[in-house]
Amino acid sequence: MKSNEAAKQLGIPYPIVQAPMAGGVTTPELVAAVSNAGGLGMLGAGYLTPDQTRTQIQNVKQLTSKPFGINLFVPNEFHAAADEVQAAHQHLHTIQAQLSVTPETSLTVPEFSQLLESFKEQVKVVIEEQVPVCSFTFGLPSKETIDELKQHPITLIGTATTVKEAVENEKAGMDLVVVQGSEAGGHRGNFLAGHQESFVGLLSLIPQVADHVQIPVVAAGGIMDSRGIKASFCLGAQGVQMGTAFLTCAESGAHHVHKEAVLQAAEDDIIMTRAFSGKWARGIQNKFTEEMKEQELRVPDFPVQNTLTQSIRKASSDQNNPDFMSLWSGQSPRLAKKQTVAQLMDDLVAALE
Amino acid sequence: MKSNEAAKQLGIPYPIVQAPMAGGVTTPELVAAVSNAGGLGMLGAGYLTPDQTRTQIQNVKQLTSKPFGINLFVPNEFHAAADEVQAAHQHLHTIQAQLSVTPETSLTVPEFSQLLESFKEQVKVVIEEQVPVCSFTFGLPSKETIDELKQHPITLIGTATTVKEAVENEKAGMDLVVVQGSEAGGHRGNFLAGHQESFVGLLSLIPQVADHVQIPVVAAGGIMDSRGIKASFCLGAQGVQMGTAFLTCAESGAHHVHKEAVLQAAEDDIIMTRAFSGKWARGIQNKFTEEMKEQELRVPDFPVQNTLTQSIRKASSDQNNPDFMSLWSGQSPRLAKKQTVAQLMDDLVAALE
Repeated sequence: MKSNEAAKQLGIPYPIVQAPMAGGVTTPELVAAVSNAGGLGMLGAGYLTPDQTRTQIQNVKQLTSKPFGINLFVPNEFHAAADEVQAAHQHLHTIQAQLSVTPETSLTVPEFSQLLESFKEQVKVVIEEQVPVCSFTFGLPSKETIDELKQHPITLIGTATTVKEAVENEKAGMDLVVVQGSEAGGHRGNFLAGHQESFVGLLSLIPQVADHVQIPVVAAGGIMDSRGIKASFCLGAQGVQMGTAFLTCAESGAHHVHKEAVLQAAEDDIIMTRAFSGKWARGIQNKFTEEMKEQELRVPDFPVQNTLTQSIRKASSDQNNPDFMSLWSGQSPRLAKKQTVAQLMDDLVAALE
Repeated sequence: MKSNEAAKQLGIPYPIVQAPMAGGVTTPELVAAVSNAGGLGMLGAGYLTPDQTRTQIQNVKQLTSKPFGINLFVPNEFHAAADEVQAAHQHLHTIQAQLSVTPETSLTVPEFSQLLESFKEQVKVVIEEQVPVCSFTFGLPSKETIDELKQHPITLIGTATTVKEAVENEKAGMDLVVVQGSEAGGHRGNFLAGHQESFVGLLSLIPQVADHVQIPVVAAGGIMDSRGIKASFCLGAQGVQMGTAFLTCAESGAHHVHKEAVLQAAEDDIIMTRAFSGKWARGIQNKFTEEMKEQELRVPDFPVQNTLTQSIRKASSDQNNPDFMSLWSGQSPRLAKKQTVAQLMDDLVAALE
């Protein structure tokens, strides 16, 4: 099982991918530790500038000579009318007050054209730095970008939440496809399916996708130990992508309050929210998700709401206060452990041998 | 694997349980065919009167000498204020008009005390008829009822959607617990967890429950073929309960329009709705679920809304019109086949040998 098609395409001994959690979790130390242990470490570069992206890549290279990967967010057009943005901002004032945050007097919300420009620059950096693997979330890059990447020895991974999305990934030229089950923590990667329709459990999703694509399927969502890996392979996956299991590792850059919250959580503490960013994501319910419940369907689209909540998330982190942090987690927090990447990988690799 | 603890407790060679789909799907022919093939056929008696329950049991006995089971709905107190019921009824008039159904001039909605009385009578019938296995959905019966059942050689199965619910089932004396993943078709069985919190994918749910209970875990939701069975066992289940896979079998009593709809559906056609019954359930989206989307959070609780939509569902069925039928399905409809129970069971049993 060890040396299957997915592992071959990724150039690694074990088809275990560390999920590219954006927002500071995927430190160069985490990424390198996973790659050094025979898996694929992944930099979550979705929120990085092109310059930061280059620095992070170079830092990883100093810590490992093994293949690693990077994930980019594909920019999507979004709608955020000025009055909606103002109303959403206003709504956050009472929460800002609880954290002693002074409301911003002027707001700079991102523009699609800037995001697209930055994405193109990141792709250039990936090519120049010869990153072995590049994955995409929130949709497919343009044909032009894919063609450009394909002129280099870079393995491409797409993300899908339904059979249709997986088929589109294959048609577009992705070498592998990550299928994100409804169990997965963090942001949903659906780009064709609606929110509810995209919410398919892995036990249903893997075999239905495996029946419809030729490229290797990498399963993501709720996989934490050898049981999840074996089950994913039984269902037709050739690899797994694991986020929460790596998030609580010593090498991860997740805030210690976030790690502790995951280690203490039960599966029924985990909910879906779009209050933090304007895009549906899975995490531990807290004061923020509770207070925003009524409002969350009306907040501006990603990434505008993400910008609006930035000061709140930062203050909550600075104050070691879990109440207003985005505590992303998949649906298996009871299986999370405080351990090193080497310890985790040892257990996982044993399942594949 | 064939003769594990779950199979032993159920008195059957293969721990494959046919889900007790209520509402006419589980004909005596279906139940008997599953039991005769070495699995456990289950009568869905949730909507039956005590007399109908007895007749159905006796009909099954004429077709098989093998163990079979029955499922009862545990009655829950519900709230349905007269004006809410009237408003919900009114709201259905435009849909009734599309089916040429004359709106009811007087409404008889169920009362909790009647439902409880009927449930107790059903339990008596189960005991008198010596049904080998009895399962429960929508909660746990009273201690009194469980004690009564336990004086007889009846294996008891509870339903859980979270670890807490599974632990409560074990404490209450259930011999096995069905864990219902978010993939499952039909009604949700949560009774402690809220709707959103109870919505856990099997890949996350099975190992977390298996780590916290001693009784055998039976996995339910999206399992359609040998892949799903093998995966469930890898995750820690000792048995599987399959609904949609049996629904499209020749012996099932599902309407041919319902069977055809499942056979044609994709995973992203499947949604959650509470518009049909007042309780969240998973099925294929159709004109009814679309037209009721805005309204569904306001309809009266189960089973009141179920009573209100009865004439609509019946007329839609009579007219072979899928638009207003409750087309329950799990999240794996692409794996459904038009086949006999014997053909399906042959494939499944091969996975266990």
